[in-house]
Amino acid sequence: MKYELYYWPTIQGRGEFVRLALEMAGAPYLDVARQSGRGAGVAELIRFLNGRNLERPPFAPPFLKAGRLVIGQTPNILQFLGMRHDLAPKDEGGRLWTHQLELTMADFLVEIHDTHHPVAAGLYYDDQRKEARRRAADFLKNRAPKFLGYFEGVLARNARGKGYLVGAKPTYADTSMFQIMAGLRFAFPIAMSKSARRYRRLFALHGKVQLLPQIAAYLASPRRIPFNNEGIFRRYPELDAS
Amino acid sequence: MKYELYYWPTIQGRGEFVRLALEMAGAPYLDVARQSGRGAGVAELIRFLNGRNLERPPFAPPFLKAGRLVIGQTPNILQFLGMRHDLAPKDEGGRLWTHQLELTMADFLVEIHDTHHPVAAGLYYDDQRKEARRRAADFLKNRAPKFLGYFEGVLARNARGKGYLVGAKPTYADTSMFQIMAGLRFAFPIAMSKSARRYRRLFALHGKVQLLPQIAAYLASPRRIPFNNEGIFRRYPELDAS
Repeated sequence: MKYELYYWPTIQGRGEFVRLALEMAGAPYLDVARQSGRGAGVAELIRFLNGRNLERPPFAPPFLKAGRLVIGQTPNILQFLGMRHDLAPKDEGGRLWTHQLELTMADFLVEIHDTHHPVAAGLYYDDQRKEARRRAADFLKNRAPKFLGYFEGVLARNARGKGYLVGAKPTYADTSMFQIMAGLRFAFPIAMSKSARRYRRLFALHGKVQLLPQIAAYLASPRRIPFNNEGIFRRYPELDAS
Repeated sequence: MKYELYYWPTIQGRGEFVRLALEMAGAPYLDVARQSGRGAGVAELIRFLNGRNLERPPFAPPFLKAGRLVIGQTPNILQFLGMRHDLAPKDEGGRLWTHQLELTMADFLVEIHDTHHPVAAGLYYDDQRKEARRRAADFLKNRAPKFLGYFEGVLARNARGKGYLVGAKPTYADTSMFQIMAGLRFAFPIAMSKSARRYRRLFALHGKVQLLPQIAAYLASPRRIPFNNEGIFRRYPELDAS
């Protein structure tokens, strides 16, 4: 069975967390909105989203079609893939913990997004620049250190170690953390380079995941969309540290 | 086994979603930070949160101790309780769908909170009133209708009906939706009363869950903390519709 991923075709966004997990699993998938032709493209994504015949419609992309299942919400999709493709521990405690970490990353991600859109996601950045400066300053001073410090501590405490968040093997929490570190380094290069020593385990995790054979191959492929200023992570120099 | 819930003792907050599920299940639990004496109170919550000996520390309350498991992140806790106490369907599709709805509510909740704290959760409301007015106006105009319209549609499409979100029986998604409706009516009484007809299924769900015997008993008990302006839902008349 080939999975079908539905997500916006020109940004990494939340869909990227699913792409990374699928790539790491080596699972065959179709990135529907990035294909052309009948039954593909953005039109297909929107058709699906508006689908009046769907009893259980997703609220927003990404969503994943897996046979007859249509699964929405990034952490929900990842939990599902984690079970099916050995991207998370099998035991109840390990499974819950991996999901818990992912949900904390999802909270972090909202705060990262809102640095450039503190007033309204539907307004342009230029219409909320002033508020964005205030929010980004607080983010860099208080929120990012709280989240990054937490995850750095999780890495330090993982007794089975080897540099991953959960147990001895990479999980979907690691590919997600990789993505967050990559995104933060894109969006806030100055602030992040200043904190490289403080979060050395997280920087090491980023480097390590990047070199996993499946991930390295994906990142070098045209399937990886480059960062740009339409996604969650955006580089506005005035929001970075000085 | 008695569950131990760790959450701030003076607000409903995110902990309330867990309390409602525990109450609906009739599961015995200790609301640790609301107890006094040794090994209880806020001090115990904070001690746990800072616990250097914990290999898998939660990022923030609420978290639930269930035997040897310590489970953090509200939707994660609810998913766990859902399985154990028959508060969600047993089949994979139904389980994923219930969790997906909960995660969409969690996204909604962040946006509800940020109406009064668009700049920084760590600042006082008075330090971000101007930004809050902009954000709340956009919330009432665009975001609340998007979320509420979505959930109204989910209720309309639930073929097995009876007014619940998933299948024929109440799930933890219904107690969560009840809480969101109750909170919105507290925070935005004017805007919500204006939209009662537009979201008649959601208003009916609120009324229905409120009357479930376990929930009715809970709401009438001192265990239910009243809404106040320290939680997620706050009544600032200048943020409501006029």
